[in-house]
Amino acid sequence: MSTYVAGIDIGGTKSLGVVIDEQGVVVAESRVPTPQGAEALLSTVEALVEDLGNVVGEISAVGVGVPGLVTADGLFRFAPNLAEVRELPVGALLRERLDIPVVVDNDANAAAWAEHKSGEAEGVDNLVLITLGTGIGTGVVLDGKIQRGAYGFAGEVGHIIVDPDGAMCPCGRRGCWETLASGRGLARMGRELVESGRGNAILVLAGGDIALIRGEHVTRAARRGDEDALTLLKQFAWNIGLGLANASAILDPELVLLGGGLVAELDLLIDDIRVAHSELVMGAGHREPLRIEPVALGERAGAMGAAFLGAEAVS
Amino acid sequence: MSTYVAGIDIGGTKSLGVVIDEQGVVVAESRVPTPQGAEALLSTVEALVEDLGNVVGEISAVGVGVPGLVTADGLFRFAPNLAEVRELPVGALLRERLDIPVVVDNDANAAAWAEHKSGEAEGVDNLVLITLGTGIGTGVVLDGKIQRGAYGFAGEVGHIIVDPDGAMCPCGRRGCWETLASGRGLARMGRELVESGRGNAILVLAGGDIALIRGEHVTRAARRGDEDALTLLKQFAWNIGLGLANASAILDPELVLLGGGLVAELDLLIDDIRVAHSELVMGAGHREPLRIEPVALGERAGAMGAAFLGAEAVS
Repeated sequence: MSTYVAGIDIGGTKSLGVVIDEQGVVVAESRVPTPQGAEALLSTVEALVEDLGNVVGEISAVGVGVPGLVTADGLFRFAPNLAEVRELPVGALLRERLDIPVVVDNDANAAAWAEHKSGEAEGVDNLVLITLGTGIGTGVVLDGKIQRGAYGFAGEVGHIIVDPDGAMCPCGRRGCWETLASGRGLARMGRELVESGRGNAILVLAGGDIALIRGEHVTRAARRGDEDALTLLKQFAWNIGLGLANASAILDPELVLLGGGLVAELDLLIDDIRVAHSELVMGAGHREPLRIEPVALGERAGAMGAAFLGAEAVS
Repeated sequence: MSTYVAGIDIGGTKSLGVVIDEQGVVVAESRVPTPQGAEALLSTVEALVEDLGNVVGEISAVGVGVPGLVTADGLFRFAPNLAEVRELPVGALLRERLDIPVVVDNDANAAAWAEHKSGEAEGVDNLVLITLGTGIGTGVVLDGKIQRGAYGFAGEVGHIIVDPDGAMCPCGRRGCWETLASGRGLARMGRELVESGRGNAILVLAGGDIALIRGEHVTRAARRGDEDALTLLKQFAWNIGLGLANASAILDPELVLLGGGLVAELDLLIDDIRVAHSELVMGAGHREPLRIEPVALGERAGAMGAAFLGAEAVS
């Protein structure tokens, strides 16, 4: 009988579960909305694992990726975009409920690990994975190892303060890179553009209500050739490049992988992101060029990485 | 006969050489001004090593710390504060001249290593050392290892852009943390204060010439109780805390050590730095408190660390 390990990626709005076999191949998959609140979250993960178990037979371990700060023993302390979950011992509680080994890690760490093991970063020992979604997550692999820092909180490139007087971030501070380079940041930029009297095509796509403008309205207007939207995306790409330059200054990776929901729009952005990084990075002209690429595993990366980590914990 | 290893710390204005014995104890020391230009720099290091060799007898290896980006094989590529030195193969050229093993690393990496081996960070595996001097240098140790990144350029926390429209940095970009939190940054803040019509005590200490205001004029005025200078130092400490919060967000160390010339003024600043970090760090209240302390080895840390690295290379 084969050994199966589940990986669960808890996102800000939806959660994805996969099962991998001993070769690391995904053999089952299931997706549910992420519920509000700690108890509902635990029950959802438990149900996901049970559903997946019903598909493949016995599951021998679970890896869980969470979108925030988590300690090595699975205490989920803080997530900017899951406001109702704080100081939740996810690892201990799931081990009790499921009665199998459970490991918990940051979701972007898990995604970076999946790309390193079997994705775009195979053979690359120094990489940074950035998930550009509603917020920004970061996974860091240096010397072939996930970097978690002293307490498990390392790698929050999205929460480098790049504009101390800037917009409020869901983490409670002002001017984090996330406010300038996430999907939510793009939505705010779109609203500000419309408030300034431009970007009418964006407003139309949002049904005429400024408050309803989302990032996808900006990218859709840009795909139709709207000049205001295209200009805004150039600024947005510059914002992304700025944060990548900061990541390079501290971490000096050879590869940056871009994942998250905005990956679907990356064709509109990536050339400008690369130019911005090359102009903004410290010591430009005196360092090796950085490769900036989309993830290979798409939105499955986090769940797959969580499963890999779960499998390593029991191997 | 004992084995001696030299460590040379090349600073922006002066260079320090030490010799350590097999127990890591400093047995000789010498200091010279850092000359301008590549050839003069190499000759100076060569002469320093020869002088130190005359004191102790034979020197079996040399470690060199440089204030900028350097590759693993000792190619000194770029330093914001040594404008005339670019793409200089320091390691290869010194090996040729001295005919003994030579290792080259970033000066702040070397200092962090010295503090880790025999200073304030003994037994601490996750630390960031920040040198607050004319500029800002950073050494990063995670999991007990110096973190150099893919190409040797990691750890440049001083060159995180925190204010994209801010002051020019010697590295060629705008608004690096270094522009807000270094000695040069404090001098600029002092000049701006005087230009705004305040800070007369600072101006008097600078001999009445705004252009001559340096950071030490601000700290001296503060020590005499000048309110404007004290207020400016509160802002300066906040700037330092901001950068440390960014370092925490990415690297999550358990200890930050502050070194460099400004350490002599740290009694004026450290309480406010600690408060600023605790308010500005991501997930405040949901993470372990960070220890922020002065270095233990003082200005010798870089040279001692370079010597330790040299000794490790031949052991």
